[in-house]
Amino acid sequence: METSTEEFYMLEALKEARKAEEMHEVPIGAVIVVDGKIIARAHNLRETTQNAITHAELLAIEMACKVVGSWRLEDAELYVTLEPCPMCSGAILLSRINKVYYGAADPKAGCAGTLMNLLDDERFNHQCEVHGGILEDQCGSILTNFFRNLREKRKAEKLNATNTLTD
Amino acid sequence: METSTEEFYMLEALKEARKAEEMHEVPIGAVIVVDGKIIARAHNLRETTQNAITHAELLAIEMACKVVGSWRLEDAELYVTLEPCPMCSGAILLSRINKVYYGAADPKAGCAGTLMNLLDDERFNHQCEVHGGILEDQCGSILTNFFRNLREKRKAEKLNATNTLTD
Repeated sequence: METSTEEFYMLEALKEARKAEEMHEVPIGAVIVVDGKIIARAHNLRETTQNAITHAELLAIEMACKVVGSWRLEDAELYVTLEPCPMCSGAILLSRINKVYYGAADPKAGCAGTLMNLLDDERFNHQCEVHGGILEDQCGSILTNFFRNLREKRKAEKLNATNTLTD
Repeated sequence: METSTEEFYMLEALKEARKAEEMHEVPIGAVIVVDGKIIARAHNLRETTQNAITHAELLAIEMACKVVGSWRLEDAELYVTLEPCPMCSGAILLSRINKVYYGAADPKAGCAGTLMNLLDDERFNHQCEVHGGILEDQCGSILTNFFRNLREKRKAEKLNATNTLTD
Protein backbone atom coordinates (compact mmCIF):
# COMPACT_ATOMS: atom_id res chain seq x y z
CA MET A 1 0.00 0.00 0.00
CA GLU A 2 1.27 3.41 -0.90
CA THR A 3 2.22 5.84 1.86
CA SER A 4 0.40 9.19 1.71
CA THR A 5 2.22 12.47 2.33
CA GLU A 6 0.57 12.73 5.76
CA GLU A 7 1.69 9.19 6.63
CA PHE A 8 5.22 9.88 5.40
CA TYR A 9 5.66 12.77 7.83
CA MET A 10 3.85 10.94 10.64
CA LEU A 11 6.37 8.08 10.23
CA GLU A 12 9.08 10.68 10.85
CA ALA A 13 7.25 11.85 13.98
CA LEU A 14 7.07 8.17 15.03
CA LYS A 15 10.86 7.89 14.64
CA GLU A 16 11.10 10.74 17.16
CA ALA A 17 8.65 8.94 19.48
CA ARG A 18 10.92 5.88 19.35
CA LYS A 19 13.91 7.98 20.38
CA ALA A 20 11.90 9.09 23.44
CA GLU A 21 11.03 5.45 24.20
CA GLU A 22 14.71 4.46 24.12
CA MET A 23 15.32 7.10 26.78
CA HIS A 24 12.44 5.76 28.90
CA GLU A 25 10.42 8.87 28.13
CA VAL A 26 6.72 8.69 27.24
CA PRO A 27 7.02 8.04 23.48
CA ILE A 28 5.64 11.10 21.72
CA GLY A 29 7.33 12.67 18.70
CA ALA A 30 6.79 15.64 16.42
CA VAL A 31 8.13 17.14 13.20
CA ILE A 32 7.50 20.52 11.58
CA VAL A 33 7.33 20.76 7.81
CA VAL A 34 7.67 23.87 5.61
CA ASP A 35 7.41 23.56 1.81
CA GLY A 36 7.72 19.79 2.02
CA LYS A 37 10.91 19.94 4.08
CA ILE A 38 11.25 18.86 7.72
CA ILE A 39 12.75 21.92 9.45
CA ALA A 40 12.41 20.72 13.06
CA ARG A 41 12.04 17.44 14.90
CA ALA A 42 11.76 16.66 18.59
CA HIS A 43 10.47 14.22 21.15
CA ASN A 44 9.20 14.36 24.67
CA LEU A 45 12.01 14.93 27.18
CA ARG A 46 10.21 15.66 30.43
CA GLU A 47 11.97 13.12 32.65
CA THR A 48 15.43 13.68 31.17
CA THR A 49 15.23 17.46 31.48
CA GLN A 50 12.96 17.52 34.57
CA ASN A 51 11.35 20.46 32.83
CA ALA A 52 7.54 20.45 32.64
CA ILE A 53 7.38 22.23 29.30
CA THR A 54 9.60 19.89 27.24
CA HIS A 55 6.83 18.27 25.22
CA ALA A 56 7.65 17.17 21.65
CA GLU A 57 5.55 19.91 20.01
CA LEU A 58 6.94 22.74 22.15
CA LEU A 59 10.54 21.70 21.50
CA ALA A 60 9.83 21.37 17.77
CA ILE A 61 8.21 24.83 17.67
CA GLU A 62 11.21 26.30 19.51
CA MET A 63 13.58 24.66 17.00
CA ALA A 64 11.48 25.78 14.00
CA CYS A 65 11.49 29.41 15.24
CA LYS A 66 15.30 29.22 15.41
CA VAL A 67 15.53 27.78 11.88
CA VAL A 68 13.08 30.30 10.37
CA GLY A 69 14.45 33.18 12.47
CA SER A 70 10.95 34.29 13.41
CA TRP A 71 8.24 33.50 15.95
CA ARG A 72 5.78 33.35 13.03
CA LEU A 73 5.53 29.88 11.49
CA GLU A 74 2.65 30.73 9.17
CA ASP A 75 3.64 28.30 6.42
CA ALA A 76 4.37 25.43 8.77
CA GLU A 77 2.63 22.12 9.31
CA LEU A 78 3.08 20.21 12.55
CA TYR A 79 2.91 16.42 12.71
CA VAL A 80 2.64 14.89 16.18
CA THR A 81 1.96 11.32 17.26
CA LEU A 82 -0.46 12.29 20.08
CA GLU A 83 -3.17 14.96 20.08
CA PRO A 84 -1.77 18.21 21.54
CA CYS A 85 -2.41 19.14 25.20
CA PRO A 86 -3.58 22.66 26.23
CA MET A 87 0.00 23.99 26.44
CA CYS A 88 1.02 22.68 23.03
CA SER A 89 -2.28 23.76 21.44
CA GLY A 90 -1.62 27.24 22.81
CA ALA A 91 1.94 27.22 21.45
CA ILE A 92 0.57 26.18 18.03
CA LEU A 93 -1.77 29.20 18.08
CA LEU A 94 0.97 31.59 19.23
CA SER A 95 3.36 30.47 16.51
CA ARG A 96 0.58 30.71 13.88
CA ILE A 97 1.19 27.21 12.57
CA ASN A 98 -1.03 26.58 9.56
CA LYS A 99 -2.00 22.90 9.89
CA VAL A 100 -1.75 20.22 12.55
CA TYR A 101 -1.81 16.48 11.87
CA TYR A 102 -1.96 14.17 14.87
CA GLY A 103 -1.92 10.42 15.28
CA ALA A 104 -3.77 9.11 18.35
CA ALA A 105 -6.47 11.09 20.15
CA ASP A 106 -5.80 11.87 23.84
CA PRO A 107 -8.92 11.30 25.98
CA LYS A 108 -7.13 12.73 29.05
CA ALA A 109 -5.79 16.03 27.76
CA GLY A 110 -6.44 16.34 24.03
CA CYS A 111 -7.32 19.94 23.12
CA ALA A 112 -7.46 19.62 19.35
CA GLY A 113 -10.92 18.04 19.23
CA THR A 114 -11.26 15.52 22.06
CA LEU A 115 -11.85 17.46 25.31
CA MET A 116 -12.16 20.73 23.41
CA ASN A 117 -10.74 22.30 20.26
CA LEU A 118 -8.53 25.26 21.15
CA LEU A 119 -7.21 25.32 17.57
CA ASP A 120 -10.61 26.14 16.14
CA ASP A 121 -11.81 28.73 18.68
CA GLU A 122 -12.60 31.95 16.84
CA ARG A 123 -12.13 34.04 19.98
CA PHE A 124 -8.36 33.61 19.61
CA ASN A 125 -6.49 35.61 16.96
CA HIS A 126 -5.42 32.51 15.04
CA GLN A 127 -7.12 29.30 13.98
CA CYS A 128 -5.50 26.21 12.64
CA GLU A 129 -6.67 23.33 10.45
CA VAL A 130 -6.57 19.98 12.29
CA HIS A 131 -6.47 16.43 10.94
CA GLY A 132 -6.51 13.61 13.49
CA GLY A 133 -6.08 9.85 13.19
CA ILE A 134 -3.02 9.76 10.89
CA LEU A 135 -1.41 6.32 11.53
CA GLU A 136 -3.57 6.24 14.65
CA ASP A 137 -2.86 2.57 15.47
CA GLN A 138 0.93 2.86 15.35
CA CYS A 139 0.90 6.16 17.24
CA GLY A 140 -1.44 4.75 19.88
CA SER A 141 0.17 1.33 20.31
CA ILE A 142 3.66 2.71 20.96
CA LEU A 143 2.09 4.53 23.95
CA THR A 144 -0.04 1.59 25.11
CA ASN A 145 2.98 -0.74 25.00
CA PHE A 146 5.13 1.75 26.86
CA PHE A 147 2.66 2.08 29.73
CA ARG A 148 2.01 -1.70 29.87
CA ASN A 149 5.74 -2.39 30.10
CA LEU A 150 6.06 0.28 32.80
CA ARG A 151 3.24 -1.28 34.85
CA GLU A 152 4.76 -4.77 34.51
CA LYS A 153 8.19 -3.48 35.49
CA ARG A 154 6.76 -1.75 38.57
CA LYS A 155 4.77 -4.87 39.51
CA ALA A 156 7.93 -7.01 39.22
CA GLU A 157 9.91 -4.51 41.32
CA LYS A 158 7.21 -4.54 43.99
CA LEU A 159 7.18 -8.36 44.02
CA ASN A 160 10.96 -8.45 44.31
CA ALA A 161 10.86 -6.00 47.21
CA THR A 162 8.21 -8.13 49.00
CA ASN A 163 10.23 -11.34 48.42
CA THR A 164 13.35 -9.69 49.81
CA LEU A 165 11.44 -8.62 52.91
CA THR A 166 10.06 -12.15 53.53
CA ASP A 167 13.34 -13.96 52.67
CA MET B 1 -1.84 51.77 52.82
CA GLU B 2 -0.21 48.50 53.69
CA THR B 3 0.90 46.18 50.88
CA SER B 4 -0.60 42.69 51.06
CA THR B 5 1.50 39.61 50.40
CA GLU B 6 -0.20 39.19 47.00
CA GLU B 7 0.55 42.82 46.12
CA PHE B 8 4.16 42.47 47.28
CA TYR B 9 4.82 39.64 44.81
CA MET B 10 2.78 41.29 42.05
CA LEU B 11 5.02 44.37 42.41
CA GLU B 12 7.96 42.03 41.74
CA ALA B 13 6.17 40.70 38.64
CA LEU B 14 5.60 44.34 37.58
CA LYS B 15 9.37 44.96 37.89
CA GLU B 16 9.82 42.16 35.37
CA ALA B 17 7.16 43.70 33.10
CA ARG B 18 9.11 46.98 33.18
CA LYS B 19 12.27 45.15 32.08
CA ALA B 20 10.31 43.87 29.06
CA GLU B 21 9.08 47.41 28.33
CA GLU B 22 12.65 48.74 28.33
CA MET B 23 13.44 46.14 25.66
CA HIS B 24 10.39 47.22 23.59
CA GLU B 25 8.71 43.94 24.41
CA VAL B 26 5.02 43.76 25.39
CA PRO B 27 5.35 44.44 29.15
CA ILE B 28 4.31 41.27 30.94
CA GLY B 29 6.22 39.87 33.91
CA ALA B 30 6.02 36.86 36.20
CA VAL B 31 7.58 35.51 39.38
CA ILE B 32 7.31 32.08 41.01
CA VAL B 33 7.26 31.83 44.79
CA VAL B 34 7.95 28.78 46.98
CA ASP B 35 7.75 29.07 50.78
CA GLY B 36 7.68 32.85 50.57
CA LYS B 37 10.82 32.99 48.43
CA ILE B 38 10.97 34.09 44.79
CA ILE B 39 12.70 31.20 43.01
CA ALA B 40 12.18 32.34 39.41
CA ARG B 41 11.44 35.59 37.59
CA ALA B 42 11.00 36.31 33.91
CA HIS B 43 9.43 38.63 31.39
CA ASN B 44 8.08 38.36 27.88
CA LEU B 45 10.88 38.05 25.30
CA ARG B 46 9.07 37.15 22.11
CA GLU B 47 10.52 39.84 19.85
CA THR B 48 14.06 39.61 21.24
CA THR B 49 14.22 35.84 20.93
CA GLN B 50 11.89 35.55 17.89
CA ASN B 51 10.62 32.48 19.68
CA ALA B 52 6.82 32.13 19.96
CA ILE B 53 6.93 30.35 23.30
CA THR B 54 8.96 32.88 25.30
CA HIS B 55 6.10 34.24 27.40
CA ALA B 56 6.88 35.43 30.94
CA GLU B 57 5.12 32.49 32.64
CA LEU B 58 6.71 29.81 30.45
CA LEU B 59 10.20 31.19 31.02
CA ALA B 60 9.54 31.45 34.76
CA ILE B 61 8.28 27.85 34.91
CA GLU B 62 11.34 26.67 33.00
CA MET B 63 13.60 28.52 35.44
CA ALA B 64 11.71 27.23 38.48
CA CYS B 65 12.03 23.61 37.25
CA LYS B 66 15.80 24.15 37.00
CA VAL B 67 15.97 25.61 40.52
CA VAL B 68 13.82 22.88 42.08
CA GLY B 69 15.42 20.13 39.94
CA SER B 70 12.02 18.70 39.08
CA TRP B 71 9.18 19.22 36.62
CA ARG B 72 6.80 19.15 39.59
CA LEU B 73 6.25 22.57 41.14
CA GLU B 74 3.53 21.46 43.53
CA ASP B 75 4.34 23.98 46.27
CA ALA B 76 4.74 26.90 43.90
CA GLU B 77 2.68 30.03 43.41
CA LEU B 78 2.86 31.97 40.16
CA TYR B 79 2.32 35.73 39.99
CA VAL B 80 1.82 37.22 36.54
CA THR B 81 0.77 40.71 35.48
CA LEU B 82 -1.62 39.50 32.73
CA GLU B 83 -4.05 36.59 32.80
CA PRO B 84 -2.38 33.47 31.30
CA CYS B 85 -3.02 32.50 27.66
CA PRO B 86 -3.87 28.88 26.65
CA MET B 87 -0.19 27.91 26.34
CA CYS B 88 0.79 29.30 29.72
CA SER B 89 -2.35 27.92 31.41
CA GLY B 90 -1.40 24.52 30.01
CA ALA B 91 2.18 24.88 31.28
CA ILE B 92 0.80 25.78 34.74
CA LEU B 93 -1.25 22.55 34.74
CA LEU B 94 1.68 20.44 33.52
CA SER B 95 4.03 21.78 36.19
CA ARG B 96 1.34 21.28 38.87
CA ILE B 97 1.65 24.83 40.18
CA ASN B 98 -0.55 25.24 43.24
CA LYS B 99 -1.86 28.80 42.94
CA VAL B 100 -1.95 31.49 40.28
CA TYR B 101 -2.35 35.20 40.97
CA TYR B 102 -2.80 37.49 37.98
CA GLY B 103 -3.13 41.24 37.56
CA ALA B 104 -5.17 42.35 34.54
CA ALA B 105 -7.69 40.12 32.81
CA ASP B 106 -7.07 39.40 29.11
CA PRO B 107 -10.28 39.67 27.05
CA LYS B 108 -8.45 38.41 23.92
CA ALA B 109 -6.75 35.25 25.17
CA GLY B 110 -7.28 34.88 28.94
CA CYS B 111 -7.78 31.23 29.85
CA ALA B 112 -7.85 31.54 33.63
CA GLY B 113 -11.44 32.77 33.83
CA THR B 114 -12.10 35.24 31.02
CA LEU B 115 -12.58 33.24 27.78
CA MET B 116 -12.52 29.97 29.69
CA ASN B 117 -10.88 28.55 32.80
CA LEU B 118 -8.42 25.82 31.86
CA LEU B 119 -7.00 25.89 35.40
CA ASP B 120 -10.28 24.74 36.92
CA ASP B 121 -11.29 22.05 34.40
CA GLU B 122 -11.72 18.76 36.26
CA ARG B 123 -11.12 16.72 33.11
CA PHE B 124 -7.40 17.52 33.37
CA ASN B 125 -5.29 15.72 35.97
CA HIS B 126 -4.47 18.91 37.87
CA GLN B 127 -6.45 21.94 38.99
CA CYS B 128 -5.09 25.17 40.28
CA GLU B 129 -6.48 27.93 42.50
CA VAL B 130 -6.75 31.27 40.66
CA HIS B 131 -6.96 34.82 42.01
CA GLY B 132 -7.34 37.63 39.47
CA GLY B 133 -7.27 41.40 39.75
CA ILE B 134 -4.17 41.80 41.98
CA LEU B 135 -2.93 45.39 41.30
CA GLU B 136 -5.15 45.24 38.24
CA ASP B 137 -4.83 48.97 37.40
CA GLN B 138 -1.02 49.03 37.42
CA CYS B 139 -0.78 45.74 35.54
CA GLY B 140 -3.31 46.91 32.95
CA SER B 141 -2.05 50.48 32.48
CA ILE B 142 1.55 49.43 31.75
CA LEU B 143 0.08 47.46 28.80
CA THR B 144 -2.35 50.18 27.69
CA ASN B 145 0.42 52.80 27.72
CA PHE B 146 2.77 50.50 25.82
CA PHE B 147 0.27 49.93 23.01
CA ARG B 148 -0.75 53.62 22.89
CA ASN B 149 2.90 54.67 22.55
CA LEU B 150 3.41 52.04 19.86
CA ARG B 151 0.40 53.31 17.87
CA GLU B 152 1.61 56.93 18.17
CA LYS B 153 5.11 55.96 17.10
CA ARG B 154 3.79 54.09 14.06
CA LYS B 155 1.49 57.01 13.16
CA ALA B 156 4.44 59.43 13.37
CA GLU B 157 6.60 57.12 11.24
CA LYS B 158 3.83 56.88 8.61
CA LEU B 159 3.45 60.67 8.60
CA ASN B 160 7.21 61.13 8.22
CA ALA B 161 7.27 58.68 5.32
CA THR B 162 4.41 60.54 3.59
CA ASN B 163 6.12 63.92 4.13
CA THR B 164 9.35 62.55 2.67
CA LEU B 165 7.47 61.29 -0.40
CA THR B 166 5.77 64.65 -0.99
CA ASP B 167 8.87 66.77 -0.26
